[in-house]
Amino acid sequence: MRDLLAFTSELGDIPTFADPTRIKQRSRDFYWYSPRLKPIFDEVLADLVVLPRTEEEALTAIKFCFKHNVPLTVRGTGTGNYGQAMPMKGGVVLDMSDITGIVWMKPGSVRVKAGTKIHDLEAAANAQGQEMRIFPSTRRAATIGGFIAGGSGGVGAANWGLLRDRGNILAARVLTMEENPRILELRGDDIQKVNHAYGTNGIITEVEIPLAPAYDWIDTVITFDDFGTAARFGQALVESPGILKKTCALLPSPVPQSYFKSLKPYIGEGKHSIFSLVAPHSFEALLELVEDRGGEVVYRKSQSEVEAEKAIPLYEYTWNHTTMWALKHDKSITYLQTFFPAGQNVELVQKMNEHFGDEVMHHLEFVRSGGGFTCFGIQLVRYTTDERLDEIMAFYEEHGCAQFNPHAFTLEEGGMKEVDLVQLDFKRESDPKGLLNPGKMLAWEDPSWTAAKDKTYLYAAG
Amino acid sequence: MRDLLAFTSELGDIPTFADPTRIKQRSRDFYWYSPRLKPIFDEVLADLVVLPRTEEEALTAIKFCFKHNVPLTVRGTGTGNYGQAMPMKGGVVLDMSDITGIVWMKPGSVRVKAGTKIHDLEAAANAQGQEMRIFPSTRRAATIGGFIAGGSGGVGAANWGLLRDRGNILAARVLTMEENPRILELRGDDIQKVNHAYGTNGIITEVEIPLAPAYDWIDTVITFDDFGTAARFGQALVESPGILKKTCALLPSPVPQSYFKSLKPYIGEGKHSIFSLVAPHSFEALLELVEDRGGEVVYRKSQSEVEAEKAIPLYEYTWNHTTMWALKHDKSITYLQTFFPAGQNVELVQKMNEHFGDEVMHHLEFVRSGGGFTCFGIQLVRYTTDERLDEIMAFYEEHGCAQFNPHAFTLEEGGMKEVDLVQLDFKRESDPKGLLNPGKMLAWEDPSWTAAKDKTYLYAAG
Ligand SMILES: Cc1cc2nc3c(=O)[nH]c(=O)nc-3n(C[C@H](O)[C@H](O)[C@H](O)COP(=O)(O)OP(=O)(O)OC[C@H]3O[C@@H](n4cnc5c(N)ncnc54)[C@H](O)[C@@H]3O)c2cc1C
Ligand SMILES: Cc1cc2nc3c(=O)[nH]c(=O)nc-3n(C[C@H](O)[C@H](O)[C@H](O)COP(=O)(O)OP(=O)(O)OC[C@H]3O[C@@H](n4cnc5c(N)ncnc54)[C@H](O)[C@@H]3O)c2cc1C
Repeated sequence: MRDLLAFTSELGDIPTFADPTRIKQRSRDFYWYSPRLKPIFDEVLADLVVLPRTEEEALTAIKFCFKHNVPLTVRGTGTGNYGQAMPMKGGVVLDMSDITGIVWMKPGSVRVKAGTKIHDLEAAANAQGQEMRIFPSTRRAATIGGFIAGGSGGVGAANWGLLRDRGNILAARVLTMEENPRILELRGDDIQKVNHAYGTNGIITEVEIPLAPAYDWIDTVITFDDFGTAARFGQALVESPGILKKTCALLPSPVPQSYFKSLKPYIGEGKHSIFSLVAPHSFEALLELVEDRGGEVVYRKSQSEVEAEKAIPLYEYTWNHTTMWALKHDKSITYLQTFFPAGQNVELVQKMNEHFGDEVMHHLEFVRSGGGFTCFGIQLVRYTTDERLDEIMAFYEEHGCAQFNPHAFTLEEGGMKEVDLVQLDFKRESDPKGLLNPGKMLAWEDPSWTAAKDKTYLYAAG
Repeated sequence: MRDLLAFTSELGDIPTFADPTRIKQRSRDFYWYSPRLKPIFDEVLADLVVLPRTEEEALTAIKFCFKHNVPLTVRGTGTGNYGQAMPMKGGVVLDMSDITGIVWMKPGSVRVKAGTKIHDLEAAANAQGQEMRIFPSTRRAATIGGFIAGGSGGVGAANWGLLRDRGNILAARVLTMEENPRILELRGDDIQKVNHAYGTNGIITEVEIPLAPAYDWIDTVITFDDFGTAARFGQALVESPGILKKTCALLPSPVPQSYFKSLKPYIGEGKHSIFSLVAPHSFEALLELVEDRGGEVVYRKSQSEVEAEKAIPLYEYTWNHTTMWALKHDKSITYLQTFFPAGQNVELVQKMNEHFGDEVMHHLEFVRSGGGFTCFGIQLVRYTTDERLDEIMAFYEEHGCAQFNPHAFTLEEGGMKEVDLVQLDFKRESDPKGLLNPGKMLAWEDPSWTAAKDKTYLYAAG
C-alpha cells in the first residue's frame, strides 16, 4: 500500500500527512489499557492521514479510498480504549477533528458537526443555559462523533441512561463508502446502525442530540466507613427521584487514596467514597440522605469554582478516567467492564467485593437502566496472568454479571454490540468493499460467526 | 361561636366576610366526590372568613383565634377533594389566596408566597424558561401552599416522583398557632412536618421549590386495541430514560369516549388510551416506541397550540380531573386511589381489570417511585353500595395493592400520611390548643389511636 502516496495529488489541497511521527500519533488510541490488546495493536500504523475540513472533502477522501481499494479508518481524537480508531489493515486514517461547529441549537437539542470537541459543544450549549445529557469523562479531549461511534455512556447516565437508549441520539448524517457515496440522514431507531459501530459502516459528519438544562453542578465526595454502606448509598442516591445529580460513582478504598493525588488530602485512610455531581438546588436534600446513611461530605466544589481554581473536575476521576489514574501509578493494573443486573446489583457487588478482596477494586458507576437503576462496574484488577483474568471474568458471568470485555477489539467480542442482520445488511449496503475500519466487525470478517445465545449485549439487536 | 363577630374589629382593616353565600362558598371543597364524605361535610360552615394580604395580617388573625379559642382552618382555593380545607368545627377560615407573589427565582429554584396560584407561578417561571417539577391537574385554580399542604403529586411525577420525595420541596416558612406565634423556616426533612399535613400544624406563608426546564410539551394521545397492551406501553414509556415526558396516564375505554367531550372525535370506540406530555425533542423517539408496541398517535398539540386555540390542556383530563369529568356525566361514579407495587404493577392492573370488569375503570398514572417505576390508580368505580365499595378496596388490599382511601377525611385514614411521634410532637408545639383544622388528625383527636402495623403510607414516618 506504500504506492498510495503516489496518488495523494488526487486529494487536491485536502491536508494530509505521512511522516512517521504524526502517522504513529494518529494511528493510536488507548488500546494499551489492556495487556491483551497491547501486543495486537503495537505495530498498527496508517499509511496516510487525511484531515478533511468539510463534508465535501470527506467525500473526496472516501472516493479516493474506494477507487484505490484502500482501507479507511475514521478517527475523532483517538481517546477510545479498545483500539477502535486504529487502522489494523493500514491505509487511510480519516481524522475528523477539523470538521467542527454547531449547525443549530434550540431549547432541548443541538445539531453539531462530528469533529467538534465535546468541550466546545458544551461551551456553546452552556452559553444558552443548556448542556449535553450524557458526556464521556474524556469531555475535554474527545469529539462528539467519536463518542457516538465509539462510546456508550458517561456522566449523566444516572439520569438519562446510556447512549443506546431511545431519545439520547436524535439523528446522524452519514456518508457511505461507495463509488458514489450517499449522504444518509438516520433518525429514530435507524441511528442504532451507526451508534457504537466503530465507524465500520459509514462516516458520521453531523449528529443531533438532546440537551438538558445546565446547572452549576457541585462536585461532591462523600465517604463511608465500609464498602457495603457506600454501595447502598450509591444505589439510594441514584434512585432518589427528587435529588438531581449528573453522576454517582463508587470509588472504594484504596483507589482515590492511592491514585488520585489532588483528592488524597480529603479522603481518609480506608474510607470508601461516592463521587457525585449534584445540582445546587438539590444539595440540601443530598445532605439529608448523607446524614441518614452515616456518610460524610469531605469535598465540595461547584463547577464555577473548579474553573476559577483550575481544579481537576471530579468527573475526570470517574468512568474510564479511574482506570487511567490507576495505570499512571501502577502499570500492572488492568480493568473489567461489568453490568450488574438491576434489583440484585447491590448484593452482587458486595458478594464479588468480598470474594475477590484486594485483587479486584470495585469502581462502580450507578446508572439508570431499563425499568430501574443499577451499577456498571469498571473494576480495577491487579493483573497477574491471562488465565486468571479469564477466570475472574468467568466468575462474574457465572453469577449473572454480564462482562463487556475491554480486552477485545471487535464490536461483538467487546460484548457491547450485538451485530444482527439489520446491521450486517446496512454494512453490505454502505460499505460493499469492506473498507471501513476493517477487522472490527466479526460478523463481517467471518460470516459463519454467531453470538452465543445467552450472551448479554449492551446494544442488543432489535 | 356566633359572638365571634363581636370581636372582628380586633382584626383592624384585614378583609373579612361573614355573609352566608360567601361563607358557604369558602367553606367548601370537592368533598362531594365521595358519597361517604358528602353527608359528613354537607353542613360544615365557617363563622368568619379572613383574607389576610400579608404575613403580618395572617399573624394578627392567628393571635385573634388563639385569644378567643377559635378554630382556624387554612384554605388555598379549596380544590382539595377530601374535605381537607373544610372547617369541621366552624370558626375562622383563613383564606390565603391574597398572599401572593414571587419572593425570588433562580435557575433551578423559586421561593413564592403560599397563596400564589400555581398558574401564576408557572407563568413567572416560564418567562425564565423554567417550570415546576410537579403540578396538580388543578394547576389553573389551586394555590402552591394548598398543593403542598393538601396534595401529593401530579403532572411531572413520571420524572420526579411525588412531593414526598426528598428534594421536591426545598423549604417552607410556617407560622405557629400560639399566643406569640413563631415564624419557622423548615428545610430539608423538616419540611415533611407540614407537607400533606392539611394545615393541622402550622400556616405556610412561603414555599421554596425546585424548578425544571420548560419545554413546549406536546399533548399526545396514543390508542391501543387492548388494555394490557396499553398498560405495558405506559410502563415502557415511563421507564424509557431517553424519552422526556411529564406525565403518562392510562385512560381505558370507555372513559375518554364517555366523559371527555373535546377528545371524543379522536379516540375510537373500544380503544384504550395513553395520555402523555412529551418534550418536542423526544417526540420522534416516542413514535418509535409507539410503532414497536402497535399503538397509534391520534392526537397531538403543543402547549403553544393549546394556548393559541384555547383548547383544554391534556393534563386537565388526568390525575383527579379524570374523576371530575366522569362525575359531570354520571353522578353515580366514585373513585379509588391505589398504589400498585413496582415490579408487579402491570400484571396486577391487568388482573384487577379482568376481575372487576365494567365495575372498575382502571385510570392509571405511571410515576417514578422508589427504585423504579410503577402506576398509581385513580380508578373510577360504578358505585352501588357502601358495602360493595369496602369489598372492592379489600380485594385490592388482599392482592398487595395499597389503598389511599379517598373516602376518609383524616390524614391517617386517607392512608397517605403516617402521623408519627415527630409529627405529633410538632403539632403539640405548633398548635398547643389544637385549633388548627380540628378533626383532621386522628392521632391528635384520639391519643390511643395507632396505625395498623402492615399499613402502607404514602408519607411514611421516618
Ligand atoms: C481516560 C478515558 C476515559 C473514557 N471515558 C469514557 C466514558 O466516560 N464514556 C464512554 O463512552 N467512553 C469513554 N472512553 C472511551 C472514549 O473516550 C470515548 O468513546 C470517546 O468519546 C471517543 O471519542 P474520540 O473522538 O476520541 O473517538 P475515537 O477514539 O477517535 O474513535 C472512537 C471510535 O469511533 C469511530 N469514529 C470516530 N469518529 C467517527 C465519525 N465521525 N464517524 C464514524 N465513526 C467515527 C472510530 O473509528 C472509532 O472506532 C474513555 C476513554 C479513556 C481513554
Ligand atoms: C379536579 C381535581 C383534580 C386534582 N388533581 C390533583 C393532582 O393532580 N394532584 C394532587 O396532589 N392533588 C390534586 N387534587 C387535590 C387538590 O387540588 C390539590 O391538592 C390542590 O393543589 C390543593 O390546592 P388548594 O389551593 O385548592 O388547597 P385547598 O384545597 O384550599 O387546601 C388543601 C389543604 O391544604 C391546607 N392549606 C391550604 N393552604 C395552606 C397554607 N398556606 N398553609 C397550611 N395549610 C394550607 C388546607 O387546610 C387543606 O387542608 C385535585 C382536586 C380536584 C378537585
